[in-house]
Amino acid sequence: SRFSHCKVRIPRPHGKSFVHRSELKQAKRIVVKLGSAVVTRDECGLALGRLASIVEQVAMLQNQGREMMIVTSGAVAFGKQRLRHEILLSQSVRQALHSGQNQLKEMVIPVLEARACAAAGQSGLMALYEAMFTQYSTCTAQILVTNLDFHDEQKRRNLNSTLHELLRMNIVPIINTNDAVVPPPVPNSDLQGVNVISIKDNDSLAARLAVEMKADLLIALSDVEGLYDSPPGTDDAKLIDIFYPGDQQSITFGTKSRVGSGGMEAKVKAALWALQGGTSVVIANGTHPKVTGHVITDIVEGKKVGTFFSEVKPAGPTVEQQTEMARHAGRALASLDPEQRGEIICCLAELLTEKKDEILSANRRDMELANSSGRLSQPLIDRLSLSTAKLNSLAIGLRQLAVSSRDSVGRVLRRTRVANNLELEQITVPIGVLLVIFESRPDCLPQVAALAIASGNALLLKGGKEASNTNKILHQLTQEALSIHGVADAIQLVSTREEVEDLCRLDKLIDLIIPRGSSQLVRTIQRAAKGIPVLGHSEGICHVYIDNDASIDKAIDVDSKCDYPAACNAMETLLIHRDLLRTPIFDQIIDMLRTENVKIHAGPRFASYLTFSPSEVKSLRTEYGDLECCIEVVDSMQDAVDHIHKYGSSHTDVIITENEETAEQFLQQVDSACVFWNASSRFADGYRFGLGAEVGISTARIHARGPVGLEGLLTTKWVLRGEGHTAADFSEQGSMKYLHENIPVPQGSFS
Amino acid sequence: SRFSHCKVRIPRPHGKSFVHRSELKQAKRIVVKLGSAVVTRDECGLALGRLASIVEQVAMLQNQGREMMIVTSGAVAFGKQRLRHEILLSQSVRQALHSGQNQLKEMVIPVLEARACAAAGQSGLMALYEAMFTQYSTCTAQILVTNLDFHDEQKRRNLNSTLHELLRMNIVPIINTNDAVVPPPVPNSDLQGVNVISIKDNDSLAARLAVEMKADLLIALSDVEGLYDSPPGTDDAKLIDIFYPGDQQSITFGTKSRVGSGGMEAKVKAALWALQGGTSVVIANGTHPKVTGHVITDIVEGKKVGTFFSEVKPAGPTVEQQTEMARHAGRALASLDPEQRGEIICCLAELLTEKKDEILSANRRDMELANSSGRLSQPLIDRLSLSTAKLNSLAIGLRQLAVSSRDSVGRVLRRTRVANNLELEQITVPIGVLLVIFESRPDCLPQVAALAIASGNALLLKGGKEASNTNKILHQLTQEALSIHGVADAIQLVSTREEVEDLCRLDKLIDLIIPRGSSQLVRTIQRAAKGIPVLGHSEGICHVYIDNDASIDKAIDVDSKCDYPAACNAMETLLIHRDLLRTPIFDQIIDMLRTENVKIHAGPRFASYLTFSPSEVKSLRTEYGDLECCIEVVDSMQDAVDHIHKYGSSHTDVIITENEETAEQFLQQVDSACVFWNASSRFADGYRFGLGAEVGISTARIHARGPVGLEGLLTTKWVLRGEGHTAADFSEQGSMKYLHENIPVPQGSFS
Repeated sequence: SRFSHCKVRIPRPHGKSFVHRSELKQAKRIVVKLGSAVVTRDECGLALGRLASIVEQVAMLQNQGREMMIVTSGAVAFGKQRLRHEILLSQSVRQALHSGQNQLKEMVIPVLEARACAAAGQSGLMALYEAMFTQYSTCTAQILVTNLDFHDEQKRRNLNSTLHELLRMNIVPIINTNDAVVPPPVPNSDLQGVNVISIKDNDSLAARLAVEMKADLLIALSDVEGLYDSPPGTDDAKLIDIFYPGDQQSITFGTKSRVGSGGMEAKVKAALWALQGGTSVVIANGTHPKVTGHVITDIVEGKKVGTFFSEVKPAGPTVEQQTEMARHAGRALASLDPEQRGEIICCLAELLTEKKDEILSANRRDMELANSSGRLSQPLIDRLSLSTAKLNSLAIGLRQLAVSSRDSVGRVLRRTRVANNLELEQITVPIGVLLVIFESRPDCLPQVAALAIASGNALLLKGGKEASNTNKILHQLTQEALSIHGVADAIQLVSTREEVEDLCRLDKLIDLIIPRGSSQLVRTIQRAAKGIPVLGHSEGICHVYIDNDASIDKAIDVDSKCDYPAACNAMETLLIHRDLLRTPIFDQIIDMLRTENVKIHAGPRFASYLTFSPSEVKSLRTEYGDLECCIEVVDSMQDAVDHIHKYGSSHTDVIITENEETAEQFLQQVDSACVFWNASSRFADGYRFGLGAEVGISTARIHARGPVGLEGLLTTKWVLRGEGHTAADFSEQGSMKYLHENIPVPQGSFS
Repeated sequence: SRFSHCKVRIPRPHGKSFVHRSELKQAKRIVVKLGSAVVTRDECGLALGRLASIVEQVAMLQNQGREMMIVTSGAVAFGKQRLRHEILLSQSVRQALHSGQNQLKEMVIPVLEARACAAAGQSGLMALYEAMFTQYSTCTAQILVTNLDFHDEQKRRNLNSTLHELLRMNIVPIINTNDAVVPPPVPNSDLQGVNVISIKDNDSLAARLAVEMKADLLIALSDVEGLYDSPPGTDDAKLIDIFYPGDQQSITFGTKSRVGSGGMEAKVKAALWALQGGTSVVIANGTHPKVTGHVITDIVEGKKVGTFFSEVKPAGPTVEQQTEMARHAGRALASLDPEQRGEIICCLAELLTEKKDEILSANRRDMELANSSGRLSQPLIDRLSLSTAKLNSLAIGLRQLAVSSRDSVGRVLRRTRVANNLELEQITVPIGVLLVIFESRPDCLPQVAALAIASGNALLLKGGKEASNTNKILHQLTQEALSIHGVADAIQLVSTREEVEDLCRLDKLIDLIIPRGSSQLVRTIQRAAKGIPVLGHSEGICHVYIDNDASIDKAIDVDSKCDYPAACNAMETLLIHRDLLRTPIFDQIIDMLRTENVKIHAGPRFASYLTFSPSEVKSLRTEYGDLECCIEVVDSMQDAVDHIHKYGSSHTDVIITENEETAEQFLQQVDSACVFWNASSRFADGYRFGLGAEVGISTARIHARGPVGLEGLLTTKWVLRGEGHTAADFSEQGSMKYLHENIPVPQGSFS
């Protein structure tokens, strides 16, 4: 309620529009303009669901301590429903008197005069707003104005002081044009069945009002996504994220628009007018079903919704432009010789040691900021810090990668003689544009960059704010290395201002997202990434099964749990064969875990065997990620397999046994990315597997599964070379026959 | 409006509840019960957005000619907001008189009596409903009842006739408990800050009313998804899709529930009571943000939302059970010897010829139904029909596949000596459970089944209704073949009643979806499949570029366009080098296309070169899929590549040239799944590539790209065999060192 939440006091900025979307969070006084397309449905009633969600958002922002104003359409639509109803009723009474029959369905619906509709609808519309806002303990007030009111100095001053008084009392003014008194109606076909005034979207009214009231932000909602650089629907039309007045000549407006009389051009004019007056403007779609629920709050939170108008041209390219540049330069990178890609990586390795003073000094600045802000936990600060030793080992790793990069791109996987003089090759090629999102650790940057270079992929890097200075210099060095072969733009560092969620929506531009960080980060991104595949591990519920034929000297379970308990390949559940209970082996297992301070939770069956059992598990699907694990009893190897299939996450599962037959059955049957016999689950790792570079661990079932090396960053391409072959040549009447001979491919063949 | 839509007259079924969800479409009289969790927000106001969307759905169904009734909660919540506001105002006046200061924020909010809240809120709630329904030209009426009213015969009859009269007049009755007169309030902590009566979810009221009014369907919305077989949140809890009274003992109810006093058990009791009275019941979540917008209409359309109560136990397993059975048997299939899988496929091939009479007779039944219904177009009917010849060639294809299946599963791709006695293998394994959705062609079934068998995958088959008889017998034969090695359940035929959209949501159960059919089908499924990868081609905008060094005898462009214009690998845009314009070659190209009746559209540059140009293209990204194509002029090979990157879909692109250097540059630079030199785009096809079996063509960039053979149905698994190795052994203090030696893998090695 407004009484409990209105403590948030946002300092009012000083009458200047904002430069970046991220600053919109500071907007205190906000005008929300609802175009007729937002407020009304196709059938001319009100779009109640949208209105309700808009009211909810406005009330929420008001309760945060902001001063909200609404400029709304909708009175005509509301009134039309009402008047039509009345007329039909009176007609039906007349008809009933005449014929005694109910002929409602055949009656002609009269054409209604729009100003009458507006007058009849205004009270109902306001009542609806009031009923809705009441649900959020928010008071509303009705203001009817015409554009002329702004030209009369006295009226203008009265309006101004009234609105200020309302805002002071924490009331949301709802402003509408006084349609009942405006000039004569002009027919408009937007609303069928009713001869309405041309519903000028209240754009200029809203802009005037916003400037008059020195609002910080004007949110203008209509039924288009925002401003496009060409008429929407044409081949090259792109939604403009940030528009600044100097860009105006680069826009081609369409000749027609469904929206309002002046269409987008009028909207832009109004927006620029508001901008000049010191009010920031966002034009966005308020009818999109997926985003309606939070379009207003998203805009105020600085998310990329619609088009943001800024007086200052943003420095540097947009992320969309960066992606284009990266894809373009990435294609050049992919067409280099493998040796040249190796040279770039070696050059980067050298720069890491050569420029170590600059790197470490940038890193110190990040560390100081992190320490002084006090917002980072100690483990995060540790991961943020670089050292000469770390840089040296990074450089060594990079040089190794340079070697293994030699045979990644353009490798021939398959060669087929399809027919005489028609030869097919399947070769490895880069996936395209990768987006790697990493937290804290800046040493991730050169590693990931080297992986992308080695595989010929373009790369967008999104690092954490806390490492921005370090990431910046590391990225500069990467571009310096790339420039030795003229492909500096292939790797781009995304501004820290960009929201991860916004990046995850660039499904036409990005081919694969790789989150490097906690499984929480991975899950967040998997949810956000609509239409872009994500390579990463979502969950690691790993099991170690101790068979009745296990040898006790193999303390694999302890290593699996304790070597690094937070890792996704650490053991979470220990399965023990029933026959081992109450044997010395069992006692030793428990003792070893206790020595390492592992907190034990009992599975239901295990608990039933014990007189005094440890706390019973809440779920057998728990990922503890700490010095904790679950112990459960199983009847047999088969029972263990069933348990793993039911409760596991198909990551890594281990059997400890001396019985080879049992082991092989387990290895065959368990349907997980990694299945081990007498080896710690901790080996499930790209480096330990000897894959050279570690891209990550994948819990997906397609493309790459388990630890992923460079190969996970490659896809394939089919190249067919003929001499004018057509499909018709191979028809029944044709002259050719398919041969489909496999041509042997010697290892290390390149296209 | 209700006057124009109320012509739909749905025949009333005869007082019996429905057996299948699909029958719910016929429900004429429907009671929608809105629990308090649906109507109210956390902060005790009304959930306006949800209410608005519910009103919209109810009005829509009413306008279809159904008789809708609403049983609602919410008066208390509405009244609470209202009363609290009043009290605060009166308090603030008193305080202002005392202190002259505004101390609103510090004031204590009084505890309100719930019956007073209900009385104060009822009128506002009804006003809100009325305002909302008015927007859909729908009248409402208010009915307040207590449970006792049903026990008084006179009252019951009055209520009954009132409601019937309202329904007759096309008015939506909105029913609420008369909270102001019900027994004394019981404290309840669900709504904070207000001492309310225990809001008994109006379940029993709604059930009584539904039976009394002989409603066909009761939709009970609360904040749980439906009925679970165990308390929700526990490891094994599964949402029950269809519940029938005999299942009651198999349900474990939780001890506590947030919802209402009796929780789910009370809901089920009420539901069963209604069911016995002849009213079908669906319990579903009305608060889920993603589905709220259409939960009611989805239920009435027969979609799988919540739990459906049916008096008759549905025959056969549910699709979830089928998936479980398939996964289980699929694992057994995967563990067979490759020879055994081959035997199953050969057996299926034999059955196709052996049982051809039965197959063809089933097929004839489908054809007759299709012809008599008249709903299928001729091309679809052609694709539906089978013949002895078709079956024979199917059998031949299957036998070929049986051979190539030998080396699919368990093939060793990589072998590494990680350390002494620690050996790693990467082997091929099936992906898991596939869902193949196909239209019309029943010959797809044995083909797809054989692919799944060859790759050791479990398979759900979803065929079209029009081929149900043919599909049924073909599936029986498939299971017969599978049963020779005891894995009959690995391939399941999904009932034609299942909605494709419902299947696409089974993301925990299905690993890969393969749509076989039009690109429209593929797109629909890509949109519907949340969280499950889809293998298929979404778009094929293929280019043929005729270089200035092209030889005219290579009529590849004509073949690319005309061999099968509807295919995704057919040419859509012909790019011509500028120098060829006004040469004999150019004239020949145009003549050849004209001879084949190809309709030509001109790209903007091409049009600018011509005096009389054909119609200019609307978009250079058009997939015509017919005897139509676009012609555009480019300056150079490089220009062609840029055009393809800008407007293409990375499917298949072709260069025609005699210049090898130009060709190789084109082949290297064009970033498409298939890039051809002097060969028709129509060769982009699994069979023509010699991949043996064709799974489909993929336009994805990961996993499988371009034509996909059996390999696209495989993933990998890492198998590590040690002797008790732990990660600690390899630490700085440890005794072991990583070797990472590649062990050569002879072709055809199996694990």
